[in-house]
Amino acid sequence: MHPKVEEFNAYRSEMNTRILATDNLILKRIFNLDTNAFAEGALDVKTKELIGLTCSLVLRCDDCVKYHIGKCKEIGLSKTEIVEGMAIANLIGGTIVIPHLRRAIEFLEQLEG
Amino acid sequence: MHPKVEEFNAYRSEMNTRILATDNLILKRIFNLDTNAFAEGALDVKTKELIGLTCSLVLRCDDCVKYHIGKCKEIGLSKTEIVEGMAIANLIGGTIVIPHLRRAIEFLEQLEG
Amino acid sequence: MHPKVEEFNAYRSEMNTRILATDNLILKRIFNLDTNAFAEGALDVKTKELIGLTCSLVLRCDDCVKYHIGKCKEIGLSKTEIVEGMAIANLIGGTIVIPHLRRAIEFLEQLEG
Amino acid sequence: MHPKVEEFNAYRSEMNTRILATDNLILKRIFNLDTNAFAEGALDVKTKELIGLTCSLVLRCDDCVKYHIGKCKEIGLSKTEIVEGMAIANLIGGTIVIPHLRRAIEFLEQLEG
Amino acid sequence: MHPKVEEFNAYRSEMNTRILATDNLILKRIFNLDTNAFAEGALDVKTKELIGLTCSLVLRCDDCVKYHIGKCKEIGLSKTEIVEGMAIANLIGGTIVIPHLRRAIEFLEQLEG
Amino acid sequence: MHPKVEEFNAYRSEMNTRILATDNLILKRIFNLDTNAFAEGALDVKTKELIGLTCSLVLRCDDCVKYHIGKCKEIGLSKTEIVEGMAIANLIGGTIVIPHLRRAIEFLEQLEG
Repeated sequence: MHPKVEEFNAYRSEMNTRILATDNLILKRIFNLDTNAFAEGALDVKTKELIGLTCSLVLRCDDCVKYHIGKCKEIGLSKTEIVEGMAIANLIGGTIVIPHLRRAIEFLEQLEG
Repeated sequence: MHPKVEEFNAYRSEMNTRILATDNLILKRIFNLDTNAFAEGALDVKTKELIGLTCSLVLRCDDCVKYHIGKCKEIGLSKTEIVEGMAIANLIGGTIVIPHLRRAIEFLEQLEG
Repeated sequence: MHPKVEEFNAYRSEMNTRILATDNLILKRIFNLDTNAFAEGALDVKTKELIGLTCSLVLRCDDCVKYHIGKCKEIGLSKTEIVEGMAIANLIGGTIVIPHLRRAIEFLEQLEG
Repeated sequence: MHPKVEEFNAYRSEMNTRILATDNLILKRIFNLDTNAFAEGALDVKTKELIGLTCSLVLRCDDCVKYHIGKCKEIGLSKTEIVEGMAIANLIGGTIVIPHLRRAIEFLEQLEG
Repeated sequence: MHPKVEEFNAYRSEMNTRILATDNLILKRIFNLDTNAFAEGALDVKTKELIGLTCSLVLRCDDCVKYHIGKCKEIGLSKTEIVEGMAIANLIGGTIVIPHLRRAIEFLEQLEG
Repeated sequence: MHPKVEEFNAYRSEMNTRILATDNLILKRIFNLDTNAFAEGALDVKTKELIGLTCSLVLRCDDCVKYHIGKCKEIGLSKTEIVEGMAIANLIGGTIVIPHLRRAIEFLEQLEG
């Protein structure tokens, strides 16, 4: 695994543990919902992850984008599909999204090794 | 057609005409891209419209949400699928999205007659 | 009650019912969390409502602002306290917040009759 | 004057008076700064109003956009110049800005009579 | 003091000096207002800092969040109170806020030593 | 050239190449529009770059701000003019913009050597 991907995953996992250790019920439930919302339902998992990725991109959250790119790859979406989703997000969100797209493509290519 | 839907479509169409009549090349090209981006590609039209809908919802743009709900219905997405997509957007975007969800559900039910 | 306040409450309540009627589990849980988060805890209810109000104002959501102004009045916050909270939000969020502040003050004064 | 323009100006002016009547010092100073910031300085008034207009458009604040379109017309900017500025804002802010551009063009044409 | 906290404070202080050294009157006044707005008034300092913190979190500004967490600790708010405030912000702002919450908790725990 | 400026330019250029290498037509056209929109037109290049800079600042995109500061310097805008534009953006966007202003001033002064 690319060291940058490993570092990203480790920090995310470590801090999630520390957030849940604060024992705040609202935060626990939000984390719980986050897992449930992306499970297979009326929409399949690929569609849901693309929704997660593109919403993260228009909201310009680098870490959220990276997380969903990781999931997209994991469940078998191709680079072309991922980039096509991100292109729609870029059009909706405007050129202000481009710096986040740069970091997204960098992470996607790190994942691909 | 529900009068509110008709009114929405008429205003949208009228103002698009007037925007293009300003003859600004950048605006023309943005409008053009907007049509192309949602055409069948590596991703199918249903996935793309769900991306358009959910990105519009997290960005809290009522008119964009209405437009994409209209397209979603037109291409055959069910109410359950549309609502499931919007639920993910609501989780990502937070409770600040709820007032926009109210207007989205209202419009969706107006479309259904 | 001022007719505008009544109208606001009625629409909000009617659409919440219709959202919950879609029977989407994620949405139900988000609505549930929304109730729990503002209950007395380590922070008292007044502080929580001021947080709700000011976060709504910087995020520029008129309906959320109106809802929390209603709650703030209900639990006994004075107009001076509410306006002082909103002034901080205006400073943090910038002059782009002013149009929302106009509608907030209008609603606050409608509530006061 | 077009009735919609008159209505917009009247509401804005009435609510500004009521905001200042709350006698909150922070709000008074923000309003004061707002006047000073757009006065002739190292940058001329036309450039400043175009900055005000385009920033309002990317932040998607209809009332702010209308206000600055009014000022732009008042100080002699042409429709072509105003639209060119708004086209840049549309590109930066993305297609999510289009519904606000519709209302901007409508207001601009109401101002022109 | 944790080296990350020291580094944060030093950069903030150094750049504030350089911003004020540009001698721009509008910026000077904004900085001034920022100090005044958080002073004791109709609302007490604890409430104001919690407003500052939660508004910063929903607007997803890491540096603003860190600054207000520092102030919250300084004036005696407990970790439980701070986390409870941030949980409300997370609910309002959605899961897109979580990466910022991670960095907030990390900074809070660095402050606690 | 200051090493931080060089690093910024190199990363930006490298990643733009890799984005275009994905061969996505929508992205290519967005990049194309981005070049065209800032060319001399009804508005001159200085006004357009100030629009680009201030819109980037209110949207709080550090990389976009840096890019436009670079362009502003390149076409001959003075530090006073650039700072005056950014002060308007700070007022419109609120104190939440200040951390981005810090990084903007730092980059501007790195550019000046």
